[in-house]
Amino acid sequence: MVGEQHMTQERRFAPVSGKVMPRFAGIATFMRLPHVPVEEADGVDIGLVGIPFDGGTTNRPGPRHGPRQVRDMSSMMRQIHHALKIAPYDLANVADLGDAPVNPADVKDALDRIEAFFREIHTRGIRPLSAGGDHLVSLPVLRALGADRPVGLVQFDAHTDLWDGYFGDFKLTHGTPFRRAIEEGVLDPKRTVQIGIRGSCYDWEDREFAARTGVRIFEIEEVDALGPEKVMAEARRIVGDGATYVTFDIDCLDPAYAPGTGTPEVGGFTPREAQALVRGLRGLDIVGADMVEVSPPFDPSGYTALNGATMMWELLCLMAETCALAR
Amino acid sequence: MVGEQHMTQERRFAPVSGKVMPRFAGIATFMRLPHVPVEEADGVDIGLVGIPFDGGTTNRPGPRHGPRQVRDMSSMMRQIHHALKIAPYDLANVADLGDAPVNPADVKDALDRIEAFFREIHTRGIRPLSAGGDHLVSLPVLRALGADRPVGLVQFDAHTDLWDGYFGDFKLTHGTPFRRAIEEGVLDPKRTVQIGIRGSCYDWEDREFAARTGVRIFEIEEVDALGPEKVMAEARRIVGDGATYVTFDIDCLDPAYAPGTGTPEVGGFTPREAQALVRGLRGLDIVGADMVEVSPPFDPSGYTALNGATMMWELLCLMAETCALAR
Amino acid sequence: MVGEQHMTQERRFAPVSGKVMPRFAGIATFMRLPHVPVEEADGVDIGLVGIPFDGGTTNRPGPRHGPRQVRDMSSMMRQIHHALKIAPYDLANVADLGDAPVNPADVKDALDRIEAFFREIHTRGIRPLSAGGDHLVSLPVLRALGADRPVGLVQFDAHTDLWDGYFGDFKLTHGTPFRRAIEEGVLDPKRTVQIGIRGSCYDWEDREFAARTGVRIFEIEEVDALGPEKVMAEARRIVGDGATYVTFDIDCLDPAYAPGTGTPEVGGFTPREAQALVRGLRGLDIVGADMVEVSPPFDPSGYTALNGATMMWELLCLMAETCALAR
Amino acid sequence: MVGEQHMTQERRFAPVSGKVMPRFAGIATFMRLPHVPVEEADGVDIGLVGIPFDGGTTNRPGPRHGPRQVRDMSSMMRQIHHALKIAPYDLANVADLGDAPVNPADVKDALDRIEAFFREIHTRGIRPLSAGGDHLVSLPVLRALGADRPVGLVQFDAHTDLWDGYFGDFKLTHGTPFRRAIEEGVLDPKRTVQIGIRGSCYDWEDREFAARTGVRIFEIEEVDALGPEKVMAEARRIVGDGATYVTFDIDCLDPAYAPGTGTPEVGGFTPREAQALVRGLRGLDIVGADMVEVSPPFDPSGYTALNGATMMWELLCLMAETCALAR
Amino acid sequence: MVGEQHMTQERRFAPVSGKVMPRFAGIATFMRLPHVPVEEADGVDIGLVGIPFDGGTTNRPGPRHGPRQVRDMSSMMRQIHHALKIAPYDLANVADLGDAPVNPADVKDALDRIEAFFREIHTRGIRPLSAGGDHLVSLPVLRALGADRPVGLVQFDAHTDLWDGYFGDFKLTHGTPFRRAIEEGVLDPKRTVQIGIRGSCYDWEDREFAARTGVRIFEIEEVDALGPEKVMAEARRIVGDGATYVTFDIDCLDPAYAPGTGTPEVGGFTPREAQALVRGLRGLDIVGADMVEVSPPFDPSGYTALNGATMMWELLCLMAETCALAR
Amino acid sequence: MVGEQHMTQERRFAPVSGKVMPRFAGIATFMRLPHVPVEEADGVDIGLVGIPFDGGTTNRPGPRHGPRQVRDMSSMMRQIHHALKIAPYDLANVADLGDAPVNPADVKDALDRIEAFFREIHTRGIRPLSAGGDHLVSLPVLRALGADRPVGLVQFDAHTDLWDGYFGDFKLTHGTPFRRAIEEGVLDPKRTVQIGIRGSCYDWEDREFAARTGVRIFEIEEVDALGPEKVMAEARRIVGDGATYVTFDIDCLDPAYAPGTGTPEVGGFTPREAQALVRGLRGLDIVGADMVEVSPPFDPSGYTALNGATMMWELLCLMAETCALAR
Repeated sequence: MVGEQHMTQERRFAPVSGKVMPRFAGIATFMRLPHVPVEEADGVDIGLVGIPFDGGTTNRPGPRHGPRQVRDMSSMMRQIHHALKIAPYDLANVADLGDAPVNPADVKDALDRIEAFFREIHTRGIRPLSAGGDHLVSLPVLRALGADRPVGLVQFDAHTDLWDGYFGDFKLTHGTPFRRAIEEGVLDPKRTVQIGIRGSCYDWEDREFAARTGVRIFEIEEVDALGPEKVMAEARRIVGDGATYVTFDIDCLDPAYAPGTGTPEVGGFTPREAQALVRGLRGLDIVGADMVEVSPPFDPSGYTALNGATMMWELLCLMAETCALAR
Repeated sequence: MVGEQHMTQERRFAPVSGKVMPRFAGIATFMRLPHVPVEEADGVDIGLVGIPFDGGTTNRPGPRHGPRQVRDMSSMMRQIHHALKIAPYDLANVADLGDAPVNPADVKDALDRIEAFFREIHTRGIRPLSAGGDHLVSLPVLRALGADRPVGLVQFDAHTDLWDGYFGDFKLTHGTPFRRAIEEGVLDPKRTVQIGIRGSCYDWEDREFAARTGVRIFEIEEVDALGPEKVMAEARRIVGDGATYVTFDIDCLDPAYAPGTGTPEVGGFTPREAQALVRGLRGLDIVGADMVEVSPPFDPSGYTALNGATMMWELLCLMAETCALAR
Repeated sequence: MVGEQHMTQERRFAPVSGKVMPRFAGIATFMRLPHVPVEEADGVDIGLVGIPFDGGTTNRPGPRHGPRQVRDMSSMMRQIHHALKIAPYDLANVADLGDAPVNPADVKDALDRIEAFFREIHTRGIRPLSAGGDHLVSLPVLRALGADRPVGLVQFDAHTDLWDGYFGDFKLTHGTPFRRAIEEGVLDPKRTVQIGIRGSCYDWEDREFAARTGVRIFEIEEVDALGPEKVMAEARRIVGDGATYVTFDIDCLDPAYAPGTGTPEVGGFTPREAQALVRGLRGLDIVGADMVEVSPPFDPSGYTALNGATMMWELLCLMAETCALAR
Repeated sequence: MVGEQHMTQERRFAPVSGKVMPRFAGIATFMRLPHVPVEEADGVDIGLVGIPFDGGTTNRPGPRHGPRQVRDMSSMMRQIHHALKIAPYDLANVADLGDAPVNPADVKDALDRIEAFFREIHTRGIRPLSAGGDHLVSLPVLRALGADRPVGLVQFDAHTDLWDGYFGDFKLTHGTPFRRAIEEGVLDPKRTVQIGIRGSCYDWEDREFAARTGVRIFEIEEVDALGPEKVMAEARRIVGDGATYVTFDIDCLDPAYAPGTGTPEVGGFTPREAQALVRGLRGLDIVGADMVEVSPPFDPSGYTALNGATMMWELLCLMAETCALAR
Repeated sequence: MVGEQHMTQERRFAPVSGKVMPRFAGIATFMRLPHVPVEEADGVDIGLVGIPFDGGTTNRPGPRHGPRQVRDMSSMMRQIHHALKIAPYDLANVADLGDAPVNPADVKDALDRIEAFFREIHTRGIRPLSAGGDHLVSLPVLRALGADRPVGLVQFDAHTDLWDGYFGDFKLTHGTPFRRAIEEGVLDPKRTVQIGIRGSCYDWEDREFAARTGVRIFEIEEVDALGPEKVMAEARRIVGDGATYVTFDIDCLDPAYAPGTGTPEVGGFTPREAQALVRGLRGLDIVGADMVEVSPPFDPSGYTALNGATMMWELLCLMAETCALAR
Repeated sequence: MVGEQHMTQERRFAPVSGKVMPRFAGIATFMRLPHVPVEEADGVDIGLVGIPFDGGTTNRPGPRHGPRQVRDMSSMMRQIHHALKIAPYDLANVADLGDAPVNPADVKDALDRIEAFFREIHTRGIRPLSAGGDHLVSLPVLRALGADRPVGLVQFDAHTDLWDGYFGDFKLTHGTPFRRAIEEGVLDPKRTVQIGIRGSCYDWEDREFAARTGVRIFEIEEVDALGPEKVMAEARRIVGDGATYVTFDIDCLDPAYAPGTGTPEVGGFTPREAQALVRGLRGLDIVGADMVEVSPPFDPSGYTALNGATMMWELLCLMAETCALAR
C-alpha cells in the first residue's frame, strides 16, 4: 500500500480507529491524536495547536470558540488520504499540543502570549498546524516562524488582510496581519500569493499596498478563468523552494459551506475547488500552516468546522510528506 | 480609480465605512444609507425600498420579514464593486426610502397601497430597487412603472410565475404576477426573459402562456448547456434598449444558498453563477429592480438574506452606472 | 403533451394538486399520495416505503426519523418532470405503503422484519422505492429482491460500504451491507457500480474487496475528470439489461446540501450533478431503489430531506417509465 | 384500573403502542390514530382536525404549518392520562379526520370552507378537537357549532382577540374572532372567560368591549394572585352546564415554552400551570375545542408543538369523559 | 383611562401602532420610535441608546450585536403597560438616539467614546435607557452620570461583577465594572443592591469586596425565600430617594429564558419573577438604566432579545412616570 | 471560608481558573480537570466518566453524543458551590477518566464493555460520576457497583424505566434498566425512590411492578403538593445510611430546560426545583451517580448539556463532601 514505502521511522502517535472506538467517543482532540504538552513534545514533527483568540475581529465575533469545535469535528478524519494516497501518521509524528495561551481582554498581550508559545514550538523543530482564532493570530505565528528569515506565504482568503488601520488608527485587527508581517520583515511580500479575493471594497488601499510590495493577488474571477491547476502552478513558482507558510481562511469558501464565519463574502470556493487548490501545494516546504476564522456561534451545526478540519487534514498530509522528505 | 471619472455631481449620501463605525453598529438601513422619507427624497436617483408583504404566498410564508433581515445583512456591503470597479455612491444619489405601506389582511388593498407608493417614487424620477416580500409584490411595482408604456423584464427565478389562478380561481398569488402584468399591459411579453426555471410541474399551462405571448424561458438545463455569457447576450438582445425591469427571485439559487425561501427547488444556481448572470445586464436601461422571496423564518442565520443583499448590491452598481450615463 | 402517449391504463392514484389543496395541508404521505396498506395494494406498480431504522449507524444517529421528514418535504413535488417530460402518475400506479416494521433494540430482528415486509411487496409485483433509515436497510431489501437471482446495483455514495466488520467483529453496520449482500449471493458484484466515493480511509480493505469481486468504483475525482455522461454510460454498460437496484446515499452530496446525515464527507456532488447522474439511469430495468441516510436531527430545516425527496422523485419518474415499458 | 369501569362500548380506534411500533415510525397522524375521512366517520365521537390556515395573522406568520408538526409531535402521547387516570380510547371513538380545506389566498373564502367542513362534522354528532392555524380559525368553528345556540367559551390566551379592526377597517384577523363571534350571536359573552391575558396594549378598546358585553377577563397577575383552583372554579361557574367551547392559544404559555408562535408575550404560564388550569375544566360539557397559533417556522425543534399536542391530549381526555358521561 | 391624567405636555414622539403599520414593517428602531440624533434631541426626556460593544467579555462573545436584535424585537411592544396602566409616551418624550460610538479593537478607547456620548446625553438632561453590549458598558455610562455625585444602583444579575482583574491583572472586563465604578467614586456602594446572584464561584474575592464596601447582595436563594415584595422593599430602602441607576443583566434570567447570553447560570429568574422585581422599582428616581448581555449569535430566535426588550419596556414605563413626576 | 475546615489532604487536581485561562480555551474535559486514564488513577476519589452509548433508546436517539457536549459546557463550572459553600477540589481528588468503551452495533456487548470499565473503577475505590448515554447505561454501572450488595437508588426522572420489554420481548432498552437491576439483585427496590414521574402511560405495568417490589414513586403532582423539602426528607429516610446511587435523567426537567433529550415530557421541574431536590441528598453515602439522556442533536445550543453539567456539579459537591467525611 502507498505510504508504507515512505515509512522511515517508528510510528509514535496515531488516532484510534473509528472501527475500534466509535468516532463520537472520547475526549475531543485534533484528529483523535494524543494530547502532548509542548514541554513534553520531543520527537513530534507536526504539532496541532488551537489559538482561541478573536480580539482582532472587526465585525462578527466567535472564532475564539473555533479550536474546540474543530477538534470535535476532526474526529471525522481517518488515517489515509483517499486521493493523494498519503498515510500521514506513518510519515511523521503528529500530536495535539493543546491551545496557545491567550488574553481576550487585551490584544497586544494576547499576541505576545501566542508568539511565545509558537517560539517554543519552533525552537523544538515542530511544524505547527493551527486552528484559529481570527486571522490576526497568523501574525504572532509568523513573528515566531519568520524571526530569522522572512517566510513565503500562500493565503486562501476572501480578503487581502493588507489594510493599515481601523477605527481611527488601530493597527492590530484581523484586517491587517499580513501588512504588519511584511512591515516587520517576517513575511516576504515577493513570495506571497493570495487566492480567492473577492467582495465589495472600502477603497483600493490594500491592492495598492500589494502592488507596491509585490504581493500577487488572484481574485476569484481570475481563478475561475484560469482553473486551479494554472493558479497553483503560478503560486508554486512564486513561493519557490523556500520556507513557506500556508494560511487558509475559511471565508475563502462560499458562505454556504462556511456560514460560521465573521465576514462572509458571497461567491466563494466550493470545498472541492479548495481541495484541488490546496493539493496544488504538494511538494512545497511548508514550515507551518493555519486554518482560521471558523466561528462556531454562527454555525452550531459544525459543518463549517468540518470543512476546516478537512482542510487541516489536507494540509497535514502535505506537511507529513514534507517531513518525510526532509529526513 | 475607476468610477471617479463618471462622477458628475456632488456626492450626497454614502454609507458610513465599516472602518469608522463597525458594521454591526447603528440602526440597520439598506447598505447603511440614510433613511429619507419619500416625500423628502428630491434629488435621489435610486431608492432602496422594502415591501414587507407575503399575502400572495401559496406555500410557506415569511417574506414579509424579508426587508428587515436584508437591511441587517446589507451592512456587509462596502462602497466599491471589486470586479466591475463601480463606485455607485459616486455615480448616483442613493437612499433608503423605508418600507411601502402594506396590509397583511387583504391582498387587493395591499397591492393598491404598494402601487400608490411606487407611483410616488416613479413620479419623482427615482428608480426603485426593492426587497420583497413574495413575488406578487412585483405586480404593483410594474403597475406603477409600466403605467405609461409596458416595460421589458429580465427575471431570474426557479418558477415562471405565469399561472392563471389557484384554489379555485383566485388570481392574485405569487404564482401569477407576470401573467397579470402581461394581461394588464404593463409588461411586454416579447421583451420578457426568464432564466433558471426548473422543478416539477403541475401541468404546462404556464409554458403554453409563455409560448403564446412570446416570453422567452431559459430552463436551467439550457443555461447549463449554453453558459452565462450566451444566455445573457440573448437576454440583452431580447429586452433591447428599452426600459427594463429586473426581478431576482432568491429561489433561482439552489436551496443550499437560499434555504430561507418559500418554494425551494433543488438544483439551482450558485451565487457565483448568479453574479455572472446579473453582471451580464450591464448597460441595460434598468428602470427598477427587485429581489424577492427571502423568508427569514426559514433561515434565521441570515445567509439567504446575505445573498439577497449581495444581489441587490450587484444591481445597485449597474443601476448607478445607468443613472450616470443617463445624465 | 409528453407522457400522455404512454398512458396505457386508467389512472388510479395521484397527488392532490398544490393549486387545489395547498402543499402545507393534509397528512404528510410520500408525494401526497394515498396511503395504501401493503395487504390492500393490488394493482400498485411502485410502492413508496419508509424504513425508519438506524441501528446500523456507527457514528451520528438519526436516520430513523428520515421517512417522516422526507414525507413532509415530498409535498414539494408536483406531477410532471420538467426536464424529462415524464408524468409518472399517468404511467404507473404509485402509492405510499407506509413504513416497514422495525425494532430499534435489536439489529438482527429489525433486519428480519424489514426483509419480510419487502418479500411481501416483491411477491405482489410491486417495485419498492424506499426512504431510509441508514444504509444497512438496503441489505434486507436486497435479500428480498435478490432472493431468486442476484441483482445489479448502481450506488451513489461517499462510502463503499464494503467493510467487513466493526468494533471487534460485528458484521451488521451501515458500513457493511453490500459486502454482506455479495457474500450472500443476492447482489452481483460484477454488475455493481459505486459513484462518488471519497473521504479519508481507515485502510484499503474495502477497495481490495471491490477489486477482488469486480465492483467498479468511481471516486469523485474520476467523476470530476470524466463528467456525468461518460460515467453513466459506463455504469449502464456494467449493469446492462438485467434487474438493477439503485441506492442513493444522501451523503454522496456535499454536506452543504446534506448537512442532515451521519457521516458527511466534504467535497461531494451538487444536487445538479446528482440529477444529471441519476437521469443517466434512464432506460434501465430498475426493480427497486432507495434513498438513505437522511438524518433529521442534524438538519431540522428539512433541506437535506428536500434533496432526498427530489432524488426519489427523479427515481420515481424513471421507474414509472420502466413500468410503462414493461407492460 | 381506572377508566375501564367507564368502558361502555366496543373500542374502535386506538393508537399503536410505542412498545410495538416505535414512536418515530409510521405516517404521522394525530395521536397515531387512524385517518378517517369525515364522510366515513360514522360512530366517531371525537374528531381530531387540522386547520392549516394563518391568513388572519397580523404579525409573524406560520401557523398554517401547525397541524403537521403537531401531528408529528403527538406521537409522543400514549394511551392513559397519568394523573387523571383517564383512558380516552376506552371511553370514546377518536379519529384523525384530516385537515379542513383552506385557501391561503383569500380570507373570506377560507373561512367559508372551514365552516362548511365543521358543519359536516357537527351534523354527524362529532365533537371536534382542532389544531390551528391562527386564532381566526376559531371563528368558523364557532359559526358551525354555535349556529343553533350560542356556546360558552373558556379561552386560555395572552390576548383577548376582541379587537374591532386592523389596517384601516379590516374585520377578519386573528385579533378579532371572538368579537365577531359575539356580534354574530354564535358566542355568548356572558358565558365567556379569558385566562392569562397580558402584554402591552394599543388602547383599551378590547377591555371596554369585554366590560360592555360581560366577558370575564383574568389577567395573568390575577391568576398569579388567586391560583389555578380559584380561577377555574370561577370559570366553571361562569360557563355552567351549557355547551362550552375551549380554545387554547399556545401563546398563553411563556415564550420559553412556546417560541414557535406569532405574537409571543413575555411572562406567561408554565406548562404545569397550564395543565392545572386545563384539568380544572373536568366535568364541563365540552362540545369542541381547539389549540391554535403553533408556528413551526419559529420553532423547528417542535417543542412548541409538543406543548400543543400535550394540551390537546389533556383536552382529549376531558372530552372523552364527557362523551362517556353523555351516553 | 389611566395615564391620561398625568399628561402634562404635548405628545411628541410615539410608535406607529401595529394596527396601522404591521409590526414586522419599517426600519427597526427601539419601540418603533423615531431616530433622533443626539445633537437634535432637544426636548427628549428619555433616550433609548444602543451600545454595541463586547470587548469586556471574558467568555462567549456576541453582545455587540445586541442593540440591533433588541431593536428588532422591541417592535413587539405597544403603547400602554397592561398592569401598571402607564402610557409612557403620554408622560415623556422618548426617542431612539442611535448607537454610541465604539471601537471593537481597543477597550480603553471604546470606553472613552461611550463615556463622551453619554456625557452629551446627560448634559442635555436626557435620561438614557440603553441596550448593551456586555456589562462593561455600564462603567462609562456611570462615569458620565455619576461624575458630579455618585449614584445608587439596583442590579439584577447572576454575577456581582465586582472582581478585581482577569488574565493576570487586566482591570477592564465585564466582570469588573462595578468595582471600578466604586473605586472611581461614581457609584455609591452603600446605595448599591445586587439581586439574583448565583452560580459557582472562583473564590470569595467579590463577596469580600461587597462586604467591605457595603454592597447588599441578594443571592437567588434569599430572593426565593423572601419573595419579590420584601426584596424590593429592602432595595428601595437602600437606594432611597437619591439618583439611582438600574442595570438589568439578562443573565439574571434562567438560561431557558435567555440562552443568548455569554455566561449563563442555571437556576435563574423567570420573566414573571423579573417583572415583579422590576415593577418594585416604581417611584424611584431612575436617572438612567441599561439592559445588557443579550448575545444574538447564541440565540438567533430573538427570544432572549424579546425578554430584553420587554424589560426595557418595563423600565421605560417607570422612567416615564419619574419624568412626569419630576416636572 | 467554608470548605477549608474539611480539607484533610493535599490538593491534587483542580480546574484551571477561568480568570487565568478563559473558559472557551483548552481541550474540553469534564470541569476542566486533567484527563487521567483509569489505569493511572490511583488516589483519585471521584472519577468523571463519559458513557457514549444510546443503543437502548426506543425513540429519538443522540445521547451517544452527550459526554462530549457535557464536557464542553462543564467549562462553565468554577471551583466553589455558592450556596452550599463546598469547595470540592479541596475535599477530594477528582479527575476525568475518559469515556467507557462502547459498541454502537450491539447492545449486549456494549453493556459488557461498560460494566467491565466500571468494575475497574470500583475496584480502585473510585466513586464514579458519569455522563450518559441513555438511561440503559445505568444498568452496567449498577451491575459493577451493586455486585457485592444491592445499592439504594434516588432517581430523578420523568419515567420509571421499570418496564419489562419492548418490540416483542426485548429486555434491554432505556425503559427497562431498573427492573433488570432489581431482578438481578444489584438494586434494592425497598431503598429505591423515583421523583418527578409524569406523562401519559402505555398501561400500569411499571407502577404495578413498583408497588409489588416496594419502589417509592413520587409523581410530579405529589412533589408539587409536598414541596422539595418533604419529598427529600422522605427520600433520605427510604435510602437511609447505606450505599446509594443517584441517577439524574435530564428529562425530569421540563423540556424548556432540556429540549435535547429523547423522550421529553411536558410539565417537568425547573432547574431551581431540581437544584433544591438534589441538594436534599446532602449527607447520603453516594457511591456513584450519573446524569443521562442529554441528546445534543436535539439541542445544538448546549443549554440542555449546561443543565446536565450543573447537576453533575451539584452532585460532585455532595460526593466530595461524602469522600471527606469517609476519610
